[in-house]
Amino acid sequence: MSDFIYGKNAVLTALEQNPKRVNKVYISKTASPCNRVKKIRELSKNHSIIVQEANLNSEKFDQTIPNQGVAASVSPVAYAELEDLLALKKEGYKKVVMLDGVQDPHNLGAIIRTCVCADYDAIIVPAHRSCPLNATVEKTSAGAINNIPIIKVNSLSSTADALKNSDWWIIAADASAKDNYFDIDYTDMNFALILGAEGAGVSKTLINKSDFWVKLPCSFESLNVSATCAVIVYESVRQIYKKSI
Amino acid sequence: MSDFIYGKNAVLTALEQNPKRVNKVYISKTASPCNRVKKIRELSKNHSIIVQEANLNSEKFDQTIPNQGVAASVSPVAYAELEDLLALKKEGYKKVVMLDGVQDPHNLGAIIRTCVCADYDAIIVPAHRSCPLNATVEKTSAGAINNIPIIKVNSLSSTADALKNSDWWIIAADASAKDNYFDIDYTDMNFALILGAEGAGVSKTLINKSDFWVKLPCSFESLNVSATCAVIVYESVRQIYKKSI
Repeated sequence: MSDFIYGKNAVLTALEQNPKRVNKVYISKTASPCNRVKKIRELSKNHSIIVQEANLNSEKFDQTIPNQGVAASVSPVAYAELEDLLALKKEGYKKVVMLDGVQDPHNLGAIIRTCVCADYDAIIVPAHRSCPLNATVEKTSAGAINNIPIIKVNSLSSTADALKNSDWWIIAADASAKDNYFDIDYTDMNFALILGAEGAGVSKTLINKSDFWVKLPCSFESLNVSATCAVIVYESVRQIYKKSI
Repeated sequence: MSDFIYGKNAVLTALEQNPKRVNKVYISKTASPCNRVKKIRELSKNHSIIVQEANLNSEKFDQTIPNQGVAASVSPVAYAELEDLLALKKEGYKKVVMLDGVQDPHNLGAIIRTCVCADYDAIIVPAHRSCPLNATVEKTSAGAINNIPIIKVNSLSSTADALKNSDWWIIAADASAKDNYFDIDYTDMNFALILGAEGAGVSKTLINKSDFWVKLPCSFESLNVSATCAVIVYESVRQIYKKSI
């Protein structure tokens, strides 16, 4: 099975981070011969991947995703296992984002990119009520999907239990929380930050299993879930940075 | 001239915040009769706006934007004037976001929503290299576009000068900055935060006119511009909140 990914950044990052995924690269006649395109040709050659001149306006390709004249056919990103996360050895504490019902591919891609920028260790998604790791997710993540394990689990609730049994703490983003997101200390624990779908929020079961609940001060209905993710994740980055100096 | 907006939130917010914009409301047979749809019918009645049953799958409507069975034809959002911002009287300092070359409607919509959530006073966009206030922007903003003045200016550079002459400070988000975004004090000044397009960043001219430059610590190429906006804007919210207690 093969998917397509689109755009210079997405293709370049796949070639840099995960070249075994890339089956073939397509470059249109009209693609500007910029440094990124040169790099794409060079890496493809190094990894013996065929580069084919192609009309990216043809029906074979998804016209709803901007491609900048570059595409690639790839094997899907493989999901990681929860056991790998629990076994992961690293200096400092581990941090993950857990998504409860986030089904929009743009939000998922944006969240993946933010987590990679902030050096998070994984993203956990449920097998149901989730979004497949498709070309839109990969494009929106600017290729960051190749840089972080995505763990698919059958039950978020059992996963929360497994994490708690391994000395992790669970933080839920919840509009009805008493604490603001900057009121808690993110620096001295392994934690999973749970974000829910817009409207529905984090499910009752997961809210009840959480150790902390945080909200964002907000003068409008609510922030978008990927913006909420960026704000809370970067508050943890800020606190960890401040503690380290 | 009339545009369409789509989705329960976008239509409801337009009716609540700016009913004069709304010419007609369309509800499909298949729309679930939830509280928001009831509210839409009620507000339309109060403002003597016709509610028409319609097939929202017809070609008349933009099929690329999810509509949840609800749409409205509206007059475009009017731009505000820089003079209004300069003349604005409020308790505390004024805060705006200025966008340099952000052309993607999803990013613009997300930034508008974040600024409204964070109680910012305006968003400034250039007449050129900007994105029109279309249905995608309105939908992505979840209707927040009705809650904040959007100021269109001929020159961002002259606007920066005008703000500086009126005792404002200019902060540029710049990946090559020395300071992290949490190293500066946002609490004691009127300020404009300038965000650039992905890749190009803030233009040299505006970088040179800025008083402060801030970056985000980042383990990947860069954060998306709307995520960057959410992180910096909410750092100002955090600081102002902490100072007030």
